Amino acid sequence: MKARVTVTLKTGVLDPQGKAIEGALRSLGVEGVDSVRQGKVFDIELGSADRSKAEAALTNACEKLLANTVVENYRVEIL
Amino acid sequence: MKARVTVTLKTGVLDPQGKAIEGALRSLGVEGVDSVRQGKVFDIELGSADRSKAEAALTNACEKLLANTVVENYRVEIL
Repeated sequence: MKARVTVTLKTGVLDPQGKAIEGALRSLGVEGVDSVRQGKVFDIELGSADRSKAEAALTNACEKLLANTVVENYRVEIL
Repeated sequence: MKARVTVTLKTGVLDPQGKAIEGALRSLGVEGVDSVRQGKVFDIELGSADRSKAEAALTNACEKLLANTVVENYRVEIL
């Protein structure tokens, strides 16, 4: 089973990396970009065929390792 | 207009970061994860209300800055 976990910064948390990308796009002449926020994506292959077990394992993985829940949100999608 | 750009490694390109996450999940006791590949996600706010213009600007941004097209694929979604 395949899954995708997306980890993004919570609203209000400063994102200097996103700000740097905004500046770089502007200096490269890419027009119309107002703001950029960067996050992470994890494409995960799971052994189990049980959807709810897979979701539980991924939520566990996010809480323990993939996301810093103080400043980041995560979203688990089973594909 | 909001958009999301997802940048992932092409198939066959080694992902040591993903491998490290796999190992870390195993040692944290998260069961059932076979493989992990890490990518990047950019949440972008655009000024223009024109969908095709926005798509063109984002493709340009990906080619110039956001993705290394030698080893990475990108996907642009207008939300």
